[in-house]
Amino acid sequence: MSPADLIVRNGTVITMDDRGTRIADGYVAVNGGRITALGPVAELADRRAAREIDARGGLILPGLINTHTHAAMSLFRGLADDLPLMTWLNDHIFPAEAKLDGAMVGLGTRLACAEMILAGTTCFCDMYLFESAVAEAAGACGMRAVVGEVLYDFDSPNYGPLERGFAYVAEMLARWKDDPLIRVAVEPHSPYLCAPDLLQRAARLAADHDAPLVIHVSETRAEVETIQGRYNATPVGHLAALGVLGPNVVACHAVVLTEDDIDLLRRHDVKVAHNPESNMKLASGVAPVPDLLRAGICVGLGTDGCASNNDLDLFSEMDTAAKLHKVHRLDPTVMDAATVLRMATCDAARTLGLERHIGSLEPGKAADLIVIDTAKPHLTPMYDPVSHLVYAVNGGDVHHSVINGQVVMENRTLQTIDLQAVLEQVAAFKQNA
Amino acid sequence: MSPADLIVRNGTVITMDDRGTRIADGYVAVNGGRITALGPVAELADRRAAREIDARGGLILPGLINTHTHAAMSLFRGLADDLPLMTWLNDHIFPAEAKLDGAMVGLGTRLACAEMILAGTTCFCDMYLFESAVAEAAGACGMRAVVGEVLYDFDSPNYGPLERGFAYVAEMLARWKDDPLIRVAVEPHSPYLCAPDLLQRAARLAADHDAPLVIHVSETRAEVETIQGRYNATPVGHLAALGVLGPNVVACHAVVLTEDDIDLLRRHDVKVAHNPESNMKLASGVAPVPDLLRAGICVGLGTDGCASNNDLDLFSEMDTAAKLHKVHRLDPTVMDAATVLRMATCDAARTLGLERHIGSLEPGKAADLIVIDTAKPHLTPMYDPVSHLVYAVNGGDVHHSVINGQVVMENRTLQTIDLQAVLEQVAAFKQNA
Repeated sequence: MSPADLIVRNGTVITMDDRGTRIADGYVAVNGGRITALGPVAELADRRAAREIDARGGLILPGLINTHTHAAMSLFRGLADDLPLMTWLNDHIFPAEAKLDGAMVGLGTRLACAEMILAGTTCFCDMYLFESAVAEAAGACGMRAVVGEVLYDFDSPNYGPLERGFAYVAEMLARWKDDPLIRVAVEPHSPYLCAPDLLQRAARLAADHDAPLVIHVSETRAEVETIQGRYNATPVGHLAALGVLGPNVVACHAVVLTEDDIDLLRRHDVKVAHNPESNMKLASGVAPVPDLLRAGICVGLGTDGCASNNDLDLFSEMDTAAKLHKVHRLDPTVMDAATVLRMATCDAARTLGLERHIGSLEPGKAADLIVIDTAKPHLTPMYDPVSHLVYAVNGGDVHHSVINGQVVMENRTLQTIDLQAVLEQVAAFKQNA
Repeated sequence: MSPADLIVRNGTVITMDDRGTRIADGYVAVNGGRITALGPVAELADRRAAREIDARGGLILPGLINTHTHAAMSLFRGLADDLPLMTWLNDHIFPAEAKLDGAMVGLGTRLACAEMILAGTTCFCDMYLFESAVAEAAGACGMRAVVGEVLYDFDSPNYGPLERGFAYVAEMLARWKDDPLIRVAVEPHSPYLCAPDLLQRAARLAADHDAPLVIHVSETRAEVETIQGRYNATPVGHLAALGVLGPNVVACHAVVLTEDDIDLLRRHDVKVAHNPESNMKLASGVAPVPDLLRAGICVGLGTDGCASNNDLDLFSEMDTAAKLHKVHRLDPTVMDAATVLRMATCDAARTLGLERHIGSLEPGKAADLIVIDTAKPHLTPMYDPVSHLVYAVNGGDVHHSVINGQVVMENRTLQTIDLQAVLEQVAAFKQNA
């Protein structure tokens, strides 16, 4: 056996590999940030590592992956709720965002990373302003992230005019090129805030750097009507006509879709980031996820930003995703637990183009894993671990978390973030807001 | 000031009284199981009680009230999911239930009480078999409960033929008549499992004892079709024609309703127990709760049993309730946070006919209260406590719980339940199941 600097042992390992392998009373061995071996604990004999984590009969699984969020919007959690979309945006969110700077975005990102790690998320895909600060903050927290500065036709509070926006993204792509945790994406906001030229230039930049192209698509009926009026096409049809769609595209939301849209997404192998709680809270609609899955389209789960959720807990997002589509279709068999768990692990990794690195526990992959403590009334009895992970576990049940081989949470205590300092700084931010 | 044997202090008190009173840096004083005073901590001066709980800047609010569950079904949590309703019932749930006895139901109830107390619920309304065991178990846990043996046309695994069922309920009504925690309801299962004569007799018994009449009503389309075929009426219309409807009736689910049904419910002042997560998971449909509220009908929240949820966390139920109706109506302004919080506190108390005793923090009411620890990333910053309670808090954030003046959980440690023993006994039950 190869050497290990970390062994996580004594839990049921839910690998999320292609064969759905589960290992009762298993272990995962890690060296240099990568998984080197996994199997039944009996195989280990008296082998020990420098650092050991005892799962105490719980569950060991890949860390969850949040395919769409705006991490620093944690600063605006609960600022305003239950309002019409345009009132919420124009009277509350936009004025608050206009005052942001890089330091505030970094603070909001640290707050979000603390929340995500405590709730079992080990990787997130972000879209926001001041994304260099997001990358720095996430990296400092030991968090894996796909980051991308939002691009649109207007001047940005961060980079100013669009031309400097593209330069900013190019600099970020160069700066983080070989980072073990941070990957940079190209992120035009949406078809309605980005002119065709912007979209095509963004797509070329992403292709040149083999980077994801992350974009909001067809989130609301109003958006679809706007694009229809402007281009005589659906948002998906418009993007397809521009030659922007491809396997590296992450279409966030994808709520209001025609059958032709679904066919276009399938043919271009576009990935979809599904955000059921945000779509519910903003009353955007119910994405046709069972249809997307039937078409063979890869769907990952996301929480969207805290202002429209209002948390970053992917466990509750899984629960809601599984239930929402059942009632929407009046069919209790759609979105079964195993499918939904894939949408937060291996399929989420595929959504972000990271499937060779993360999303399942397999030798050679990065050691991004979490341990669930199941010795709790709401997780007792346990007939099926996957049912519990989707329908009963919540973020607070995550006991340990490892990202790229680094223990970022042990016994629910964050190891890479000074939580007290972050909470105090956010309280001060709120006082001044 | 009157004497106090318990003071909970140093938190924002969300009273849920009719005026929506909130007290910053407040306290609640308790004596002999009742609230004697509440106000700003400054009023207390150097006053102390024999027992003190420090809310440490968190939130103090009434304990949540679960208006509909089958507590002992905690034993079947995750036994089977994602199946057609009749497959789920006939192949999994009914065979498992056929093996139950009073001891098992008592065990399942203790497991459920442990889970509920840990998640901030201080009162539940139950419907199941062997309800004497439920009453005994809940009482021993220090939990407040409305309990009722389910009555239907068939022989029961508990009491045998229906005649003995009525005798069993009558005995329970006598046995628990003056209990401070346990109240007995009369609980015919549903219009489709109960003949008209049973329903009318149950209604008379409830009226004679001033007891709630708890019944499943219009949960699914199939049920409505059955009743239409049998009685040429909707379930609500059928119950109204039988003279069964009244202010003491708790209609559980009430998913598939006509406008006439809603008018009947309003005119008879029937209360509704709304179970959004169960209705979603079983694909029953979306109850027209905004219409019920607009008609002035009192609606309380419930979780239903663990087999169809799969937990008893009313915080996540509030979150889901608020979001589900927004997306179903495509209107982000329906089911605002304050409305939903009432459905789990003061309106839930009204649903169960307990509004003079519980549901809000007011002098003279029973001391059923919980303390939320808000010093956590997912509850930071806090612009509005009510927003957080509905959209961000989960059961694991409840730090202390008091029922009828007794501290049943302190620092997340259960005070009235031997949790380890319960978990071990349930594990043994599962092995033998």
